[in-house]
Amino acid sequence: MARGTNGVQVEDLKVCVVMVGLPARGKSFIAQKAQRYLQWLSIPAQTFNVGNYRRKDAAQPTADFFDTSNAEGERTRRAAAEAAVADMLKWLKTGGGVVGILDATNSTKERRRWILELCTANNIEVLFVESKCDNEDLIMANIRDVKTTSPDYIGQDPEQAALDFRDRIRKYEQVYKTIDADGDENELTYLKIMDTGSRVIISRIRDYLQSRIVYYLINVHIRPRSVWLSRHGESMYNLSGRIGGDAEISPRGEQYALKLPALVRESVGDDRPLTVWTSTLKRTIATARHLPKHYNQLQWKALDELDSGVCDGYTYQQIKDEFPEDFQARDADKYNYRYRGGESYRDVVIRLEPIIMELERSEDILIITHQAVIRCIYAYFMKKDQERSPWMNVPLHTLIKLTPRAYGTEEVRYAAGIDAVSTWRGKGSTAKHEQPTLDVLH
Amino acid sequence: MARGTNGVQVEDLKVCVVMVGLPARGKSFIAQKAQRYLQWLSIPAQTFNVGNYRRKDAAQPTADFFDTSNAEGERTRRAAAEAAVADMLKWLKTGGGVVGILDATNSTKERRRWILELCTANNIEVLFVESKCDNEDLIMANIRDVKTTSPDYIGQDPEQAALDFRDRIRKYEQVYKTIDADGDENELTYLKIMDTGSRVIISRIRDYLQSRIVYYLINVHIRPRSVWLSRHGESMYNLSGRIGGDAEISPRGEQYALKLPALVRESVGDDRPLTVWTSTLKRTIATARHLPKHYNQLQWKALDELDSGVCDGYTYQQIKDEFPEDFQARDADKYNYRYRGGESYRDVVIRLEPIIMELERSEDILIITHQAVIRCIYAYFMKKDQERSPWMNVPLHTLIKLTPRAYGTEEVRYAAGIDAVSTWRGKGSTAKHEQPTLDVLH
Repeated sequence: MARGTNGVQVEDLKVCVVMVGLPARGKSFIAQKAQRYLQWLSIPAQTFNVGNYRRKDAAQPTADFFDTSNAEGERTRRAAAEAAVADMLKWLKTGGGVVGILDATNSTKERRRWILELCTANNIEVLFVESKCDNEDLIMANIRDVKTTSPDYIGQDPEQAALDFRDRIRKYEQVYKTIDADGDENELTYLKIMDTGSRVIISRIRDYLQSRIVYYLINVHIRPRSVWLSRHGESMYNLSGRIGGDAEISPRGEQYALKLPALVRESVGDDRPLTVWTSTLKRTIATARHLPKHYNQLQWKALDELDSGVCDGYTYQQIKDEFPEDFQARDADKYNYRYRGGESYRDVVIRLEPIIMELERSEDILIITHQAVIRCIYAYFMKKDQERSPWMNVPLHTLIKLTPRAYGTEEVRYAAGIDAVSTWRGKGSTAKHEQPTLDVLH
Repeated sequence: MARGTNGVQVEDLKVCVVMVGLPARGKSFIAQKAQRYLQWLSIPAQTFNVGNYRRKDAAQPTADFFDTSNAEGERTRRAAAEAAVADMLKWLKTGGGVVGILDATNSTKERRRWILELCTANNIEVLFVESKCDNEDLIMANIRDVKTTSPDYIGQDPEQAALDFRDRIRKYEQVYKTIDADGDENELTYLKIMDTGSRVIISRIRDYLQSRIVYYLINVHIRPRSVWLSRHGESMYNLSGRIGGDAEISPRGEQYALKLPALVRESVGDDRPLTVWTSTLKRTIATARHLPKHYNQLQWKALDELDSGVCDGYTYQQIKDEFPEDFQARDADKYNYRYRGGESYRDVVIRLEPIIMELERSEDILIITHQAVIRCIYAYFMKKDQERSPWMNVPLHTLIKLTPRAYGTEEVRYAAGIDAVSTWRGKGSTAKHEQPTLDVLH
C-alpha cells in the first residue's frame, strides 16, 4: 500500500476483474459501470473487451464460428483472448493501471483457471464477476439491444441478427459452467450476480479495492429511472459575486423556486413519485420549498457546496488580492487545489461517494444542490474528465435531466426562462459575472 | 419515508432482523454489533434475546430440555419465543423502535415462516441473518466462550458445561435447516454468512436500511486486532484557547510527536504492522511524522475536526460575545447543535460512517485526529450515549488503545507524561483551559 492522500486508499495492489457469463447477461454493462465508477474516484481502470480483439480477425462471424467443434473459430477466439489478456497485463504492470476489466464470457473452468494463473504469476489479484440470469424476458431484452448495437451485426437484417445471436448463445450454453462454490473453484474470489441482483453471492473478498467494487456492483440496478439536477435559485451572494456562505435566495431566485414545480411536472410527469434531496444550506432548502408536499425531502450535509475555507464569503478579486498564490494554484489545478481550511473538488468527490451509491440504489431523484457538487455528480454520470469538470458551465435556473441507459447517459436541459447572473468563471478571471466561453458551452 | 434531516434517511419502514443458526455460531455477537452500529447512527435498535425470556422459566436447563421430544421443554421454549416476539412487535409498533433484532436459533422453516407472517401482518419487513459455520475450531472457540460467559452455566464446572453445551447443539442439529434458496424460502430477504464471512449470500434486499445493515455485517470480522486513538500534539490554537483552524503544534506538541513512536512501540510491540490514519490538518500530520517509515500513512478529510463554521478560530468567550444564542443552544444540545456554516456532532458521525466501515474491515490502525472526532469514534466502540459523548474528556498527549472483544471493547490509556493544556470545557464555561470535572473523568 502506497502512502495515499485524501482518504483514497492507494494500494500497490492490482486487480483484474474477470467477467463471467453467457452472452446477453449484461456483462458489458457491468464492466462499463465499474470502470466509470473507478475512474470517477481517480482509480485507473480500463476494460479489455475480447470481442473487440476477435473482430480484428473475424468482423461479423455467424453462430457457427462459436461452435467448439469449429477449429478455426476456436483458434481465432483463443488468440483474441490471449491478445486482450496480454494487453491488460502490460497495462497493469507498466502502464499505470490499477483495475483491468476483462470483458468476455470466460465461461469454462479451464479459461478461468488460465487467467487466474497468469494474473497470480504477475502479482495481480483476480476478482471474478459472474452474471447469471435465467429470466427469459431479460435475456430477450438484451438480445434486442445487442442486435441493434453490436458491431457484429451492423448492416444486417435485425430479425436475422436476433436469430443468429440466439444460436450463438446456444453454442456457449453447451460449454458454460457457472462458478462452482463447492468444488475446485471454492478458493476463487468472486461475486455472482443472479437474476440482475435479486440474489448475490460474495466469496473470499480479500481487500479494500475488491470490496469497493463489489459493494458498488451490488447496488447498481437496471430499472429505468432518471436523476434531475438543479442548482438553488439565484442567491444574494451570487448577485454580489461572493462564494460560499449561507445566503438567502434573491427575488429572482424565489421566482425560480416558484416555477420549479411546473418545470419538474413538465419533465417528470404527474404520476411518478419523486424524492427530493437538498443540501443543508438555506438556498437549496428555499428552492425546494414550493415542490409538492407528497414528494419526500431529505437534507444531506454531503450535498453542501465545496467548502472554500478561509475564502468563504470572498469575491474572486478578494481572493486574488489576499491569497495571490492560492488564486494561481487553483487555476493551475482546479480539481486538486484545496482551499486553506476548506476542500478541493477531489475532496467533494470523496464525500459524494455515498451519494452516488445511494443514487445507484434509488429510483427517481431530484437533487437541488450547488455548482461544484453538480459538476462532480454530472462528471460521474456523463463520464467527464476530472481535469475539465471543474470548469463546466452549470447555469442557474436550469433543470438537468439525466437518464442512465445501458451504454451511456442521456441528457435533457430545461431552462426556466428566469434571468439570473452567471457564476461561471474562466481561468484567471476575477469578474463577478462572466459569460461562459464557447468551448465550455459545447 | 419521513422527511429526514442530515442525510440520515428516516423511513417509516420497520425492520425485524431475525438471526438464524445453530448455537455457538456467533449470532449474539452479530446481533450486538448490528445494534451498536445502528444506535450510533441514531437509528433506534434493540435486541430481543429469546434465551433471556426462556431463563425466566428455566434458568439452567440441561441439554435434554432442548430435545424436540421433550414436550415440557418445547412448550417453555415456544412460550419464550412468543413472549420475545410480542415484546419486539410492541416496541416496533408503539415504542419508537425501528430495527428489532430477534436473537435466537430460529433453526426450522416453520419457525421462520411464523415470524415472517407475524411481521408481515404488522407491516414490518423481515431480514433473516443466518450464520452458518462448519469450522470445528471456530465452533470450539465459541463453546469455550459460552461456557464461561453464558448465564445458563454460571457456577457450573466448566468441563461439564462444555459437554452439556455440545449436547445441546446436537439436539438443535437434528432439526436445523439452513435457509433454502431454491425451495420454498426462495422469496425471503436474507443474508447468509458462511464460515464467518469468507462467503456470503445476499438475497432480495429491498431497501436502504436493510442494505446498510447487510453492508455493515459483511464488513465485520472477528480476527483479533486493536484500534489506537490519539489527538494531535498540543497546538498553538490549544494554547490560546481558540477552536478550529489549522495551527501548527506547540513545542510541547512536538515533544509528544517525538515521544509517540516509543509510546506506540510500548503498546503495539515491534513486529505488528500498523497503518496510521491522520486528518488533513497540519497538527495531526505533524504529530505522525516521527513514526516509523514502514508504517503506511493515510490522510482522511473525514477525520478533520468538527467544522465550527463562522466560529472557526474563535475562543469560547468570543463565541459567547458574538453569538450568545448559539453559545447557549450548543450547551443545551451539544450533539445536535450545528455551528453556523459548520457541523454538529451528528454531522461528524455521518461523515465518520465510512471510517467506521473501514475500521471494521481493517487490522491494527492508529488514528491521529481531533477531540470531537475521537469522541465520536470512541462512542461507537464503547457504546457511549450520544447525549454524553460530546462532553467526554479526551486529554492531549495520551494514547488510547481499544480492543474489540466478543462482548464489548477493552480500553487501555497510555499517558505520555508531557504537559499540555486541557481543552475540555464544562457546560456554560468560557474558560480557556479548565480541568475536567470528576463525573467526566469517571
